[in-house]
Amino acid sequence: MLDYQLKCISCQKSYESAFNRYFCDDCGPLKGTLEVIYDYEHIQWTAHDVKGSIKQFENLLPVTFKTGMDDYVGGTPLVRKKDWYGIEEVLLKYDGVNVSGSYKDRATIIALNKAIEYGINTVFCASTGNAASSLALLGAYTRMQVVIFVPSSAPKNKLTQLVLSGAKVFALDGTYDEAYDLSLEIGLKKGWYCRNSAINPYLLEGKKTGAFEVFIQYNHKVPDYCIVPVGDGTVLSGICKGFMELRKLGLIQKTPKIIGVQPKNADTIKRVYEQGPPYEPNQRQASSVADSICVGNPRDVIKACKYMEALEGIFLTVEDADILEAIQEMTKETGLFPEPAGAVPLAALKKMANSGIIKPTESVCLFVTGNGLKDPDAAKPDQPLHAYNKEEIMERLERMDYEF
Amino acid sequence: MLDYQLKCISCQKSYESAFNRYFCDDCGPLKGTLEVIYDYEHIQWTAHDVKGSIKQFENLLPVTFKTGMDDYVGGTPLVRKKDWYGIEEVLLKYDGVNVSGSYKDRATIIALNKAIEYGINTVFCASTGNAASSLALLGAYTRMQVVIFVPSSAPKNKLTQLVLSGAKVFALDGTYDEAYDLSLEIGLKKGWYCRNSAINPYLLEGKKTGAFEVFIQYNHKVPDYCIVPVGDGTVLSGICKGFMELRKLGLIQKTPKIIGVQPKNADTIKRVYEQGPPYEPNQRQASSVADSICVGNPRDVIKACKYMEALEGIFLTVEDADILEAIQEMTKETGLFPEPAGAVPLAALKKMANSGIIKPTESVCLFVTGNGLKDPDAAKPDQPLHAYNKEEIMERLERMDYEF
Repeated sequence: MLDYQLKCISCQKSYESAFNRYFCDDCGPLKGTLEVIYDYEHIQWTAHDVKGSIKQFENLLPVTFKTGMDDYVGGTPLVRKKDWYGIEEVLLKYDGVNVSGSYKDRATIIALNKAIEYGINTVFCASTGNAASSLALLGAYTRMQVVIFVPSSAPKNKLTQLVLSGAKVFALDGTYDEAYDLSLEIGLKKGWYCRNSAINPYLLEGKKTGAFEVFIQYNHKVPDYCIVPVGDGTVLSGICKGFMELRKLGLIQKTPKIIGVQPKNADTIKRVYEQGPPYEPNQRQASSVADSICVGNPRDVIKACKYMEALEGIFLTVEDADILEAIQEMTKETGLFPEPAGAVPLAALKKMANSGIIKPTESVCLFVTGNGLKDPDAAKPDQPLHAYNKEEIMERLERMDYEF
Repeated sequence: MLDYQLKCISCQKSYESAFNRYFCDDCGPLKGTLEVIYDYEHIQWTAHDVKGSIKQFENLLPVTFKTGMDDYVGGTPLVRKKDWYGIEEVLLKYDGVNVSGSYKDRATIIALNKAIEYGINTVFCASTGNAASSLALLGAYTRMQVVIFVPSSAPKNKLTQLVLSGAKVFALDGTYDEAYDLSLEIGLKKGWYCRNSAINPYLLEGKKTGAFEVFIQYNHKVPDYCIVPVGDGTVLSGICKGFMELRKLGLIQKTPKIIGVQPKNADTIKRVYEQGPPYEPNQRQASSVADSICVGNPRDVIKACKYMEALEGIFLTVEDADILEAIQEMTKETGLFPEPAGAVPLAALKKMANSGIIKPTESVCLFVTGNGLKDPDAAKPDQPLHAYNKEEIMERLERMDYEF
């Protein structure tokens, strides 16, 4: 565990670490989220383990790992794809192979270790699905009581994971945003530990490790561009922070350009960012096939915008139809099956392909944040599968012969 | 790549490696499957990489890895669970986090590398689902033409993976066993490369690597017992061969006792084994909720029985209801969500718990071969999830207070 301070993202006031310290007293929960700050000049760290889990970054994190599952979070593939959409080298950081099937395990494992540190044995979260199944599954192993608040519209497979895990699950007949408010209202009053990324500053620290892994797996350099799906903005903030820390540690000179991508009808952070400082929080009615990033009222928007500003990032939106098409294309071209949110970066890459924003010789990394098996119903294949008898198959094969 | 010979499992006749050499000319495809044999006395190998992929075993395998996906197969968690069903230490080898979500990736990657070696660009298989999605996804990355024959009853999520991958998929209105026969009839005539584990001797070599990883991850020793789900018997044979090779290499003195587990109504190998040598192949009508191991007519039964004989293994059967219960229990107790076949070893452990077969101080490893997200519909949670409004949730929480 590294020594750290907590600082308000708006007024820079410092706070001591405590289990119930989630935001700045002066600036409040929406504008006063906290950031974990280290004394970068005194950090000694050498990157070495290409295949290691999140545990290899213990000396760059505010936790001591002791759940027993720490070895099995992170360490996910960085797959290379040559000559794709006019780009010579596209990288895919595939977090669908975490234990719960999404990037969220990186944040959850931090929350569980923090809860152990503080001696709390109940952890709660609100979630569009992935954070919930992550907390439910990793929490099950660590014998934590887990309480989940989800919108009842979450994909069925994600809910199945939850119920089987033994977590207490409250499916709210409402939106993710309403489930979020309700979770805080109840969870903080009860004194449970909070695994809501937008308000628990430590969770971003788990989310930054994807950036560290890309650096290590890409031979101690970083791609020119990283494309990240954006819902409440915490994965984006985490990845930005990771690259900024690599620069502060002197491991890289130049950070990647970050492209944050939101669904067309769930684009609050993009709107706030484009209005400029002081990045006044805002909200909208959100809808998207990419349930994991369908957030209308993001709760840590100032942080996301400040990180993007620091890295000269830009935001794009993509249409639902393009996301669905990108699921098929990623699966077909790389064998990596993404959930809708995980396909969003590819949808954005295709949109940019002919724009000239990215040069053919520049490298691009797509953050594929979840496994397609979590929401296969979204990925309606163009050709549904029909059953044939043997004779029909033989006949079809003869007709298809030219294709082989 | 290690030098090797191919030997008939029945008459011991040797054959040269060739792309279309799948069985002994004298003994035929059912009794004359081949085994890959090395000159164990001259193998130099040191185990070292706890988190490494299958690629770390290249010097114990008959392939040279060159697909580009080799780094992302294997290297799966070995999770420890203390004091479970009267056993002081239970290990779970969780292969649900392979790229396609099952143990089958270990065999597929060998097939793809062999196809590259032989210069073949179309690979086919018959599958209950997992081998197919594994071949379809890993094959997509390597730009292989993939042709799949599945029973149309395979779980929907597995079929979705297939269709999205761009593989040519033939869903046969029939059983897995019929799909298998049809695949061989067509695939061998067309000169495609065969990824049917039961008849391609190299695939077992991929499947043996789970045993190698358990040895490395368990601090260079092996558990007293390994419990393995058994369908066509090739995962079982592979795991047995892996432990036997560790012994031949002098890395262990004693192999684990192997317990092969079949669904009650898909227990052909158990029946053949219990009738004793020469292990006459047999078949039955099979049915089970564990679709991955629902095989009535296993095609490499002699090999499985000979390996089990060599390791003094035993077979058990479990009921479908016990498999479904084990899915919930594994998820709740370990956070690892298994598909039905992956829960079969836990169902068997529970059955044995009070029998005294396994002593409390003996260690047991469960091979959890597939991710529950592949077939979540099978895992019907006891308590379906209802949607509530905010007031209802508040009220329920008050009533449930004692539980926290």
